[in-house]
Amino acid sequence: MKKNILVGQSGGPTAVINSSLYGVLVEGKANSDKIDRVLGMINGINGLLEDRIMNLSELEDDKAKLLRTTPAAYLGSCRYKLPSDLNDPVYPVIFEKLKQYNVGYFLYIGGNDSMDTVSKLSRFGATIDSEIRFIGVPKTIDDDLIMTDHTPGYGSAAKYVASMVRQMVLDAEVYNTRSVNIIEIMGRAAGWLTAASVLARKYEGDNPAMIYLPETDFDVEQMLVKLKALIDSKKNVVICVSEGIHDKEGKLICEYEQEVSTDVFGHKNLTGSGKTLENIIKARLGVKVRSVELNITQRANAVEASLTDVNEAQQCGQEGVKMALEGKTGLMVSMQRVSDSPYTIEYKGLDVNLVCNQEKMVPAEWITNEGTDIGPEFINYARPLIQGESLPPMEDGLPVVLYRKH
Amino acid sequence: MKKNILVGQSGGPTAVINSSLYGVLVEGKANSDKIDRVLGMINGINGLLEDRIMNLSELEDDKAKLLRTTPAAYLGSCRYKLPSDLNDPVYPVIFEKLKQYNVGYFLYIGGNDSMDTVSKLSRFGATIDSEIRFIGVPKTIDDDLIMTDHTPGYGSAAKYVASMVRQMVLDAEVYNTRSVNIIEIMGRAAGWLTAASVLARKYEGDNPAMIYLPETDFDVEQMLVKLKALIDSKKNVVICVSEGIHDKEGKLICEYEQEVSTDVFGHKNLTGSGKTLENIIKARLGVKVRSVELNITQRANAVEASLTDVNEAQQCGQEGVKMALEGKTGLMVSMQRVSDSPYTIEYKGLDVNLVCNQEKMVPAEWITNEGTDIGPEFINYARPLIQGESLPPMEDGLPVVLYRKH
Repeated sequence: MKKNILVGQSGGPTAVINSSLYGVLVEGKANSDKIDRVLGMINGINGLLEDRIMNLSELEDDKAKLLRTTPAAYLGSCRYKLPSDLNDPVYPVIFEKLKQYNVGYFLYIGGNDSMDTVSKLSRFGATIDSEIRFIGVPKTIDDDLIMTDHTPGYGSAAKYVASMVRQMVLDAEVYNTRSVNIIEIMGRAAGWLTAASVLARKYEGDNPAMIYLPETDFDVEQMLVKLKALIDSKKNVVICVSEGIHDKEGKLICEYEQEVSTDVFGHKNLTGSGKTLENIIKARLGVKVRSVELNITQRANAVEASLTDVNEAQQCGQEGVKMALEGKTGLMVSMQRVSDSPYTIEYKGLDVNLVCNQEKMVPAEWITNEGTDIGPEFINYARPLIQGESLPPMEDGLPVVLYRKH
Repeated sequence: MKKNILVGQSGGPTAVINSSLYGVLVEGKANSDKIDRVLGMINGINGLLEDRIMNLSELEDDKAKLLRTTPAAYLGSCRYKLPSDLNDPVYPVIFEKLKQYNVGYFLYIGGNDSMDTVSKLSRFGATIDSEIRFIGVPKTIDDDLIMTDHTPGYGSAAKYVASMVRQMVLDAEVYNTRSVNIIEIMGRAAGWLTAASVLARKYEGDNPAMIYLPETDFDVEQMLVKLKALIDSKKNVVICVSEGIHDKEGKLICEYEQEVSTDVFGHKNLTGSGKTLENIIKARLGVKVRSVELNITQRANAVEASLTDVNEAQQCGQEGVKMALEGKTGLMVSMQRVSDSPYTIEYKGLDVNLVCNQEKMVPAEWITNEGTDIGPEFINYARPLIQGESLPPMEDGLPVVLYRKH
């Protein structure tokens, strides 16, 4: 008997999480001998529990293809964390729902927390000898999943960051008066996205002149000394900082000025490391300072997505279905780099239990110049990921997107 | 005897101010019977006074063409305001410099304040029977110059705003929990750019659900009442606001929370109308609220520029040279709309004295629903301006730009 695929999206949106969804749909349709329908959970696990399920197989091909270039999460997302105790009564409820929807293959597209969901469901499934296959498809602009070369979503965010920083540097240099411009880039614990700002440089010595990641301890006094020397030699200085930079006591720089709140996963909701530094530099160096947060434009802009990223995101979705159809479960699709040049990736299933709830940091040896710059290893790593332009269909001058009415 | 063109850029950068520069260069080269060289002032009038002049005619053609797709101001900009008193000793100094550089034609690309410079120089020139021709080429993302249908720079900024708002709406709607998202858009006195967010809507009733311009008085209590009703019917509400929204006493909403400083032209340096509203809504409605400033990405991103805008910006530069060569002076190049569909523009020289130091506002009748929405007149006006994609040459996944080393 044919089974259905049930697919969901979870965690923060990216420019290409829908491309992975498209990959799941395409591969599901291509295996119509084994797959009846591809069903989507609206708002992830929440939608399953509340019977908010849609039939993705019904989407016309030309509509479905818009998923490749539509940002955010078409199915909606959630931040539902399953209980650690597998004896919790929610598990039998979920598996009853899965049976009800004739689900044979469960694919969950998300980051760390979503892989935790895949881990728990597959482990519970094993305890009841369930035949349902559970596969995680990675996604996060933060690029902080371990054991995979990178994650879909990162390449597009990195491309946008590098492109915008290059252009904002030109903007910062138009006046013949001394100035400091701070660009705050997303990244709480891991600095992968901020590191991408190094790609913006056009020549040696170009802005951004300083790049600070959360992987190193930030020292305000050291920064001021270096900055003062820089301003003397270079009229306009651009500094890129991660939102999550912190001092050697572990105190966040943005906490120097404000209280922070936490989300349901215990992550701190950060704002303003850039703004905090702006105020400090103004007060201490008396120079013109402006800070800008790139904010959610970093993850929301599919118009400037990396074609490499879009293609890989789709392929990750397809590979996930293939693994499930091969009978594998409890895996996350990963990308293993075979070579930098020509850039070659192999897809491989990893035990999701080894991946979830861990964070991959930028290696210390890739961070140079006393924690203020990024070395060539990173450039070799990141450059292939931002190659190629993925242009969405345009209508009336704007990107055409696929959406559910709200 | 052949004369030189001297061209400068002034005021805030846009995505296409260099396209106008390219237009001046192209038209200057095309008239080599009358024009010796096209010279550029580095940092506008400041550069002329300090002999920081470059020979643009030397740029190789393929390099020069990059100006069409390079944002910010290639020549650098300034905010130098000439004295109102034409008897000020700076005027003879400037005209001596112009003579020294064999300038026959002076073109200045900029906004309101730059047109003021063109006005003063042409008026002083008349008092000494100078043969130098002074022409202003308009530019501003604010679209607030009078007597011209629109200004180069606006179309690209409007396209980016509309595209990003459409995509940020998708992002704002991913979770199944009530939320308010505020997007703050540039615009101190005029709301043209914020109004462009209406173009983001995909269907009637879509987000952004409320749009507030500085042309109307903002009433916090009225906003809260409307918002409360909206949240009840619509889970995720997106609100777009101009940075310069103010109450009926004229007090800026961002001043509700902070002190403001002023720039050399007496403009208030604003930040945070969105952040201020975020705090008010959180406190009063107890709902999840996030605010985002689009900030300088609005003017700095040439990767998503409007092809219509890029072409018109170049044409404005070319038309400026033509007017100068025809012996006209004291004019600003303007665009007069002949029809919406097919969209047709005619270029015309306007007396710069009538244009400078004035601001064009969004007409009251284009603002609907008690100051919370934008009507169809605006859509008919703005839609042609965002048509077409202008893709810069890409290398290693990033836009190739033309720059002077700093």
